[in-house]
Amino acid sequence: MAGLITLGVDVGGTNIKLGLVDQSGKILTRTRLETKSFIRSRKRLMTALAEAISHLIKQQGFSRKNIRGIGLGLPGLIDVKKGIVTFLPNIPGWRNVPLKNFIEKKLRIPTFLDNDVNVITLAEWKYGAGRKYTNLICITLGTGVGGGLILNNALYRGEGYAAGEIGHMPLNEQGPRCNCGGFGCFERYVGNKILQKKAARIFRKKNIQFPDIYPLAKKGDRRARQFWQEAGEHIGNGLIGVVNLLNPRLIIIGGGVSNNLIFMKAKIEKVIRKRAMNVQGRMVKIVRAQLGDDAGIIGAQVLVEESYLGR
Amino acid sequence: MAGLITLGVDVGGTNIKLGLVDQSGKILTRTRLETKSFIRSRKRLMTALAEAISHLIKQQGFSRKNIRGIGLGLPGLIDVKKGIVTFLPNIPGWRNVPLKNFIEKKLRIPTFLDNDVNVITLAEWKYGAGRKYTNLICITLGTGVGGGLILNNALYRGEGYAAGEIGHMPLNEQGPRCNCGGFGCFERYVGNKILQKKAARIFRKKNIQFPDIYPLAKKGDRRARQFWQEAGEHIGNGLIGVVNLLNPRLIIIGGGVSNNLIFMKAKIEKVIRKRAMNVQGRMVKIVRAQLGDDAGIIGAQVLVEESYLGR
Repeated sequence: MAGLITLGVDVGGTNIKLGLVDQSGKILTRTRLETKSFIRSRKRLMTALAEAISHLIKQQGFSRKNIRGIGLGLPGLIDVKKGIVTFLPNIPGWRNVPLKNFIEKKLRIPTFLDNDVNVITLAEWKYGAGRKYTNLICITLGTGVGGGLILNNALYRGEGYAAGEIGHMPLNEQGPRCNCGGFGCFERYVGNKILQKKAARIFRKKNIQFPDIYPLAKKGDRRARQFWQEAGEHIGNGLIGVVNLLNPRLIIIGGGVSNNLIFMKAKIEKVIRKRAMNVQGRMVKIVRAQLGDDAGIIGAQVLVEESYLGR
Repeated sequence: MAGLITLGVDVGGTNIKLGLVDQSGKILTRTRLETKSFIRSRKRLMTALAEAISHLIKQQGFSRKNIRGIGLGLPGLIDVKKGIVTFLPNIPGWRNVPLKNFIEKKLRIPTFLDNDVNVITLAEWKYGAGRKYTNLICITLGTGVGGGLILNNALYRGEGYAAGEIGHMPLNEQGPRCNCGGFGCFERYVGNKILQKKAARIFRKKNIQFPDIYPLAKKGDRRARQFWQEAGEHIGNGLIGVVNLLNPRLIIIGGGVSNNLIFMKAKIEKVIRKRAMNVQGRMVKIVRAQLGDDAGIIGAQVLVEESYLGR
């Protein structure tokens, strides 16, 4: 029988976080690598990853027999079935890399890969804000706007593992051009860069950050409240399409901006109740993600379990 | 053991079509009722329905033991699990009607209900244009624009059985108001009424119908070609959100307008290739529905089988 512990890896553009996770989704121990130390050599990164995994296991007095599986979340397009990293837009040199095969050969532990937002979605569904929900959408608001879909009680990945791109649902045919090739994408209205530009204009302060606005909004500053109300209106409008199409029970909002969800939640819900269809609009709840930066590691545990179930 | 024949019922605003369907999706025999004859009394319609079903079974020399199940597609919101017709917008008096229970009591045959577009989608998936596909979207272009979703090889109905409303995905925040409460919905650009208005303007003929435009387009009439090109552009634009979000392999287009899909298909695909995301846009195929008016009866066979599988 395979072991009970999962090793989770959350590969980001800045850090690579690793952790051992038990069967209840608790992180037992963790470590991290700096992504940029390996940015020039894919091979070095892969070797360092395998070594860090191996080290973390031994450090805790475990052997590979105690490990049920290794789960990795990566920021890009993943061929989940083959365990190949198809493309990572922000880490150079990663195209069609058979990472699953590489790690399994090195460590002889079953290994599973998925897109990072999918892994976060799995984490929130099993151990976070989405526990016991059958149909939910998890959104990460950041520089990009990502999405993961739990439909009929399973992660839905799409035909080419590219589903969930809520950030690239168009809101206006004549809207601003997006890097994806489209126009008026959701991301072009609520991505961090756009919100930050807007904040700079409103507060007349070039480098104002969201953490600077938070205390202002908290103590009732009119401009700060207005800023989040408008962001909430855009988020609400951007969600109507997915609410009408997928009729989810829950929308989980994570990512940096979600710290400020308290100032936007009522507005988002109001816009949806007003503009979405009756049945869909009334039944959807908006909540904040619960697992924060740990979601990527914890979700690996779910990824491994779901993979064993053939999902 | 239950029988091998399914009885399919397709309830529409004009006609109610009934048919016996074998295990290969072939319609063995059929009949129909006029919906308007029963429009004043829900109870009379229900009784007539049960009688017509019973009659059709006996007429073919079958007994209830030969019938594996009765499947009904209805134009509105259905509580599939409870077998209750929650609401039919176009047939007065239908609110919270326990139709499954009524028919099962009368006829002692397992009975299953679903939304009509879902039933059509099931039909096209198993016996029509979507055979062997795992992830597809079926769209009906008519007065309204409906949609059904096959995701991970099963019909996805949503938390409140209201999923699939592709016609009410907003394309423009400031677009024209829609009956659903939203603005700039897909349906407001490609619904029959809008297309017909446009045709009347272009051809300067008040009551021009799509069948009048078809031969014109076929022989290369510039205005007719242009008309369908523009419709195709709107359809393509309207599909980008769903393509990016769900990454389907196939989009099946049915409904009245789909007769003219040959004049629009290239344009639809071009718009999607250009404006949708790379992976999603390249892999999606656009095809015409194959089963036409029979889809509602044939789909009942699939509905019954899927229901037995607990889906």
